[in-house]
Amino acid sequence: MTAVSTSLSPVDLRSDTVTRPTPAMLAAMSAAPVGDDVYEEDPTVRRLEEMAAARFGLEAGLFCPSGTMTNQIAIKAHTEPLSEVICEQTAHVYLWEVGGIAFHSSASVALLAGERGRLTAEQVEAAIRPQNIHYPTTRLVCLENTHNRGGGSCYTWDDMAAISDVAKRHGLARHLDGARVFNALVATGQRGEDYGQIFDSISVCLSKGLGAPVGSVLLGSADFIQKTKRIRKVMGGGMRQAGYLAAAGIYALENNVTRLADDHRRAARLAAVLRQQPYVSDVLNPETNLVIFRLHDSQPAAEFLATLEQQGIKASSFGPQWIRFVTHLDVDDADLARVEAALQQVAQLV
Amino acid sequence: MTAVSTSLSPVDLRSDTVTRPTPAMLAAMSAAPVGDDVYEEDPTVRRLEEMAAARFGLEAGLFCPSGTMTNQIAIKAHTEPLSEVICEQTAHVYLWEVGGIAFHSSASVALLAGERGRLTAEQVEAAIRPQNIHYPTTRLVCLENTHNRGGGSCYTWDDMAAISDVAKRHGLARHLDGARVFNALVATGQRGEDYGQIFDSISVCLSKGLGAPVGSVLLGSADFIQKTKRIRKVMGGGMRQAGYLAAAGIYALENNVTRLADDHRRAARLAAVLRQQPYVSDVLNPETNLVIFRLHDSQPAAEFLATLEQQGIKASSFGPQWIRFVTHLDVDDADLARVEAALQQVAQLV
Amino acid sequence: MTAVSTSLSPVDLRSDTVTRPTPAMLAAMSAAPVGDDVYEEDPTVRRLEEMAAARFGLEAGLFCPSGTMTNQIAIKAHTEPLSEVICEQTAHVYLWEVGGIAFHSSASVALLAGERGRLTAEQVEAAIRPQNIHYPTTRLVCLENTHNRGGGSCYTWDDMAAISDVAKRHGLARHLDGARVFNALVATGQRGEDYGQIFDSISVCLSKGLGAPVGSVLLGSADFIQKTKRIRKVMGGGMRQAGYLAAAGIYALENNVTRLADDHRRAARLAAVLRQQPYVSDVLNPETNLVIFRLHDSQPAAEFLATLEQQGIKASSFGPQWIRFVTHLDVDDADLARVEAALQQVAQLV
Amino acid sequence: MTAVSTSLSPVDLRSDTVTRPTPAMLAAMSAAPVGDDVYEEDPTVRRLEEMAAARFGLEAGLFCPSGTMTNQIAIKAHTEPLSEVICEQTAHVYLWEVGGIAFHSSASVALLAGERGRLTAEQVEAAIRPQNIHYPTTRLVCLENTHNRGGGSCYTWDDMAAISDVAKRHGLARHLDGARVFNALVATGQRGEDYGQIFDSISVCLSKGLGAPVGSVLLGSADFIQKTKRIRKVMGGGMRQAGYLAAAGIYALENNVTRLADDHRRAARLAAVLRQQPYVSDVLNPETNLVIFRLHDSQPAAEFLATLEQQGIKASSFGPQWIRFVTHLDVDDADLARVEAALQQVAQLV
Repeated sequence: MTAVSTSLSPVDLRSDTVTRPTPAMLAAMSAAPVGDDVYEEDPTVRRLEEMAAARFGLEAGLFCPSGTMTNQIAIKAHTEPLSEVICEQTAHVYLWEVGGIAFHSSASVALLAGERGRLTAEQVEAAIRPQNIHYPTTRLVCLENTHNRGGGSCYTWDDMAAISDVAKRHGLARHLDGARVFNALVATGQRGEDYGQIFDSISVCLSKGLGAPVGSVLLGSADFIQKTKRIRKVMGGGMRQAGYLAAAGIYALENNVTRLADDHRRAARLAAVLRQQPYVSDVLNPETNLVIFRLHDSQPAAEFLATLEQQGIKASSFGPQWIRFVTHLDVDDADLARVEAALQQVAQLV
Repeated sequence: MTAVSTSLSPVDLRSDTVTRPTPAMLAAMSAAPVGDDVYEEDPTVRRLEEMAAARFGLEAGLFCPSGTMTNQIAIKAHTEPLSEVICEQTAHVYLWEVGGIAFHSSASVALLAGERGRLTAEQVEAAIRPQNIHYPTTRLVCLENTHNRGGGSCYTWDDMAAISDVAKRHGLARHLDGARVFNALVATGQRGEDYGQIFDSISVCLSKGLGAPVGSVLLGSADFIQKTKRIRKVMGGGMRQAGYLAAAGIYALENNVTRLADDHRRAARLAAVLRQQPYVSDVLNPETNLVIFRLHDSQPAAEFLATLEQQGIKASSFGPQWIRFVTHLDVDDADLARVEAALQQVAQLV
Repeated sequence: MTAVSTSLSPVDLRSDTVTRPTPAMLAAMSAAPVGDDVYEEDPTVRRLEEMAAARFGLEAGLFCPSGTMTNQIAIKAHTEPLSEVICEQTAHVYLWEVGGIAFHSSASVALLAGERGRLTAEQVEAAIRPQNIHYPTTRLVCLENTHNRGGGSCYTWDDMAAISDVAKRHGLARHLDGARVFNALVATGQRGEDYGQIFDSISVCLSKGLGAPVGSVLLGSADFIQKTKRIRKVMGGGMRQAGYLAAAGIYALENNVTRLADDHRRAARLAAVLRQQPYVSDVLNPETNLVIFRLHDSQPAAEFLATLEQQGIKASSFGPQWIRFVTHLDVDDADLARVEAALQQVAQLV
Repeated sequence: MTAVSTSLSPVDLRSDTVTRPTPAMLAAMSAAPVGDDVYEEDPTVRRLEEMAAARFGLEAGLFCPSGTMTNQIAIKAHTEPLSEVICEQTAHVYLWEVGGIAFHSSASVALLAGERGRLTAEQVEAAIRPQNIHYPTTRLVCLENTHNRGGGSCYTWDDMAAISDVAKRHGLARHLDGARVFNALVATGQRGEDYGQIFDSISVCLSKGLGAPVGSVLLGSADFIQKTKRIRKVMGGGMRQAGYLAAAGIYALENNVTRLADDHRRAARLAAVLRQQPYVSDVLNPETNLVIFRLHDSQPAAEFLATLEQQGIKASSFGPQWIRFVTHLDVDDADLARVEAALQQVAQLV
C-alpha cells in the first residue's frame, strides 16, 4: 500500500491554502483587463472589491495580498496607540499574526477564553476597561468566523449580533476575521448580506476554501476603506497590475462558494473515521471543513504525522497531541478514500 | 460616631503610595549633596543606585521617577519588536501600565493564569512559542513579587528559582517587578542578595511601603544598566538634581524595611476582623500588607466604600465586589483600631 | 490634431509602473508551476529569488508584493528602535513611503541634501551620530540608484563604494533602494554581480521598467533573508501561490533588461525637444528613463498637464512647476513622435 | 593663576541645568504640603500647574520629571502614527531627544533649515504635505524659543504669530518647546500671557535658568492636559509626592525670572571678550544666556576645553570647532571675572 500511495501525489490536508487554480480560473486570470491599482486604475480589482462588498452588505472593499494584511490594517484603522483590542485567546489575529497587534498598532490585547473560539456578549462586556489613566482604552472587538483554532466552529447569528450590540453600546468598533466566513455561511445558512449590519469591517480571504492563489479583501464603509488605503500603502500592500489576482478572486466568488458543502461533508466523514481509530482520543465535532483531533498520550504526534505522510497524506500538528485535517477544493472523494485507507493502515503501523 | 471620624484625618488604606515623608526623611532630603544626574554627577543618586544594587546582588542601578518607568524600561531593554513577554494575566506590567508593553516595546504578551498571581515553571515552559514565522519570539518572563492583584502573595524561593531555570534554559530574560519586594523579603525571610542570581533585572519601588515620596530603582548588570540609560532618556526620565528624591530612598532603605513586619501584622488583624463581618463573603489570606476581600453579592461595592469613607476610612475597589485594604507607614495601631471600629459600624449601616 | 490624439489611447508618461504584460509574459505566468509560498513550496518564487540574488552577487532573495515592502522590511531588519537611518532628503524611502521608517521601525532619520539625490562619503560620515545618550544610534545608510527625485540620476561605482567603505568602517548596514537599479546598470555599464560586495541588502523592483505586473525582490545574505521572512509575514506580505507573479518577474529578468537602453534613448530625445520649448525653463539632463523639467513661473503646471492630456499625453507633476516624464516598455518610437508633436502643439495652446 | 583657579570650585558654563537650589528654595521644598499626585491629590503640584498655565494664558498644566517628557508627550498627543511633524533641523525635539518623535509617536519629521533655528511662515507652509496616500499627514509644527542650537536666539512675536496663523489655517497643532522661554520673555519684553493665543501647547522647563532641581510643566487646554495624563502615565512620569519638586518650581517662578536679565548681560560680556581672543573665529551674537562661538580651525576644540578646565572653567563642545558657554543662577560677576581672566590666559597657553 505504501507503494501505491507514493506513486500518487500526496493528499494535502495541511490547509485549504494549498489549492492550485483550475484551468478555468487561470483562463479568467489571463483574460483580465488590468491597470495600475496604486493609481486606482485596475478595473478587475475594482470589480472584485465591489462584488465582495456587496456580498457582505458593506460599501467598499480593499484588495490586499493576504488575510494577515487585511486583519492588521483593520485593527490599525480602528485603534490608536494606548488602545486595547478584545479577542479570543486563540484568535488568528493574536496567535498567528506574529504579534502584529502590538507591532503595527501598539495596542494591548484583552484575551478571553471562548468555547471553541466563540465569545459571548457577557464576556465581551466584562472585558471592557473602565476609564482610568492606568488602563488602555478598549476600542475594538475582533471575532473570527469560522474559528480556526476552534476547529472551524461557527457563531450563531444571535451570538454575533449580541456581541455586536454590546460593542456598539460601548462605542467599540467590530471587526470580523472572515478568513473562512464563506464556510460559515454555507454551514449555517446565514446571509453574508446581513453581516454588514453587525460588523464595521470584515476580512474575507480568497485563497483558502475558495481556491484563489493570492489575496484577501477588506470590507467596510466607504470612509473606512478610504482611510485604509494609506495603511495598505505603508505596509507595502499597494500592488500595480493586481487584476490578475483579483480575477481569480472573482472567479472564486462566482464558482467556488456553494461547493464548500462538499468539503464540509468530507470533513464530517473524516471525523467519523477518526473516532473509530485506536490512536485517537478526541475529535472536535467538525462544523465546517476543519477536523481537529487529539492523539492518545501514548502516541507521539511527530511519529503519527510521519507515518501518515509515508501513506501519502500530509497533515499539520496543532499543539501537543492535536492534529488538524483540512478539506478543500483539491481533495475529492477519491482522495477521501485514500485518507480513510491510510488512517486504517496507520492503526497497524503506529 | 460620624462626628468623631470627620474630626480626624481619614485613615487611608487605598494604597501604600500615599505615605508622606517623616521629618527625619525630609531632613535627609534637604541635606543631600546633589549634582546634575543627566551628566551622572549627582552623588546621592549614585549612592542610592549602588546601595539598592548591593541589596539585591546585582551590579548597578538606575534611579527613575516611577515603577512604571523602571518596569517598562526593563521590558524594552530585554525585548525588540516581534518579541513576546510571558507574564501573569493580572500582572501590574500588563494590567495597570496602560498597555505599555505594546506601546513602548511593540511586544506581544503571553498571559497566564496564576494562583494568586503566581506562575509555575511548567506554565512558563508551556507558554514559550516554538520557532515559526507566524509567531513572535518569546524573549522575557516577568514575575511580580509580592503580587498586587494576588493580594500581596509571595513566591517561594524554589518556585521563583524553578521559573528562572526554565527561562535560562530557553534563553529568556528574567525580570522581577519588585514594587513590593521588600514586603516579600520580610514575610518570607528570603535574602535580597540572592535575587541577583535568578533575575536579570529587578524594579524596586521606594515610594510604596518604604515611604519615600518618589522613585524606583531598576537593577541589573552594569552592561544592562548602561543600555537602559538611553531608554530612560527617551522616556523623559532623565532628571537633574534628583539627589533630593534619592536621599529619601536611601533613608527608606536604611530605616523602613524591617518595620514592614508591623504592616503585615496589621493586615492579618484586618483580615481576621473582616472575616467576621456579615457583608464579607471572602477574604484572601494576607501574606503581606494587602488585604483583598469580597463583598456579598447583595452589598453594592460603591455604597460600601462610601459608607466606609463616612466613617473616616478610605479604601479602593478592586474589581466588581472586591475591595483592597493596604497597611503602610502612615497606619499605626490607633488607626487600626479606628478601622476595626468602622468595619463593625458599617455592619449596622449597610 | 486633438481629434487624432483622442482616438488613440493616451501615451502614459506618468510612471514606468503602468506597463501591462505582453502576451508572452502572460503565457509565462499561466504556465508557471506554483505551490504555497508561505510553506516555502512555490518553485517559481524560489527560482525568481535565486535568479535575482545571483544577478546582484548576493545569497538569497525574498519576493514581496511591492518595493515599499522590500525597502521597509530591509530598514526594519537593519535597525531597532532608537536607531537612525541616513538617507538623502528626497529618498523614496523617506519621502514617498508614508513615513514608514518611523511607522515600522520607530527609527529616526538623518536627512542629507545630495546632488540630484546622490550623497558623498564625506556627507555620510559627518552625519553619523557620536555616542551620547541624547542621540539615537546610527545604524543604516540607504542609497537609491537610480534616484527618482534626482531625475533618474546614477551613482558612479566609486562614489557608491566610498560610501560603502565609510559605512562598513563605522559598523553601519548598507541598503540600496534599487527600484530602478537595472536602469543604472544599463546606463553605466556597472555589473550587478558586483553590487553584493558593497551592499548588505538590495531592493529590486520588477514592476517598473522591467514590465512585470507586481512585485519586488529583497536581496541579501542567507541569514538576513531568513530574518526578513518573519517581518514580511507580520506586514502581510506572505502570499500563497505567488508563482504566477514571480513568473512574470523571471520573464522580465530574462527579456526586458537590455531593452532599457531604448527607454534611455527616448528620454534623451524628449529632453532635447523640451529644451526647445518656450514654456520650459530647465531640464535635468536625463541619465536614464526619467525626464524632469521645470515650467516657467508664468506657466501654471496644472494647466500645462491638462492641455497635454487633451493632446493624449499623460504626465505627473513633481513639485511646484516641475514635471516628470517617464519612458518605459509601453512607449515606442511612434508614441515618442506623438509626444514630440504634442509638446510642439502645447506651445501654441498654453 | 592656575593655582588660584583650582582652589576654587570650577565655574560651570556647560549648561544652566547644573544649578543647585539655594537655601530659600530648599526651605520652600521642605515646607510644601504634599499628597499622592497619581490620585491628583498633591496641592503643591496643582498650584504649580495652575500658576504656570496662568503665566502663559493657557488653561491647565501637567508637571513632569523632564522637558524631554513634556515635549514628547505633547508631540504624542498632537499626532498619531502616519503623521508628520514640522520642525527646524536642529530642534531639540529632533536632535537631542533620542529620536523620540519616531520612538513614541511613530511620526515622520519634515526638517527645515532655519536662521539660527528660527523658521518662517513661508517655510512652514511649503513643508505641509499635500493629500496623497504616499505621504504622512502633516499634523504639528514645533517651534523652540529660545532656540538652543541657534545660540539662545529669540523669535519676534510677529514671526511666531505668522507661523501660528499658517498652522491654524491648515489645521495643524502648534507646540512650543519653551525650555528657555523665560529667557525669551525677558530678552524681548513679550508677555507670556499672550503665548496661549498662538500655541496649543507649551513645554516650560523649571530646571534650566530658573534654577529648580527637577521638572518641566506641559501647558495646554483643559481637554488637552486631560488627554496627556494617560500618556504621562505610560511613559512613567506619574510621580507620588511630587510636591517637593513642584515647590521648587513655584519658588523659581516667583523669584528667579526677572534676574535672567543678569545672565543675559553676562553672556553679552563674555561674547565681547571672546571676540577679542586670537583663537576665536566667530561668535554668534548672544540674544539671551547662551554664547556659541567657533574656534579657529588650527585650534583643536578638545585641547581648548581641557586647557580651559585647567583654568577652572567648564564648557561644552557644540559640534566640530564650536563651543557653548551658558550663564545661569550659579554664575555671578566674580565668576564672570574668573572666566574672563581664564580666556585671556588660555590665549597664552593654546
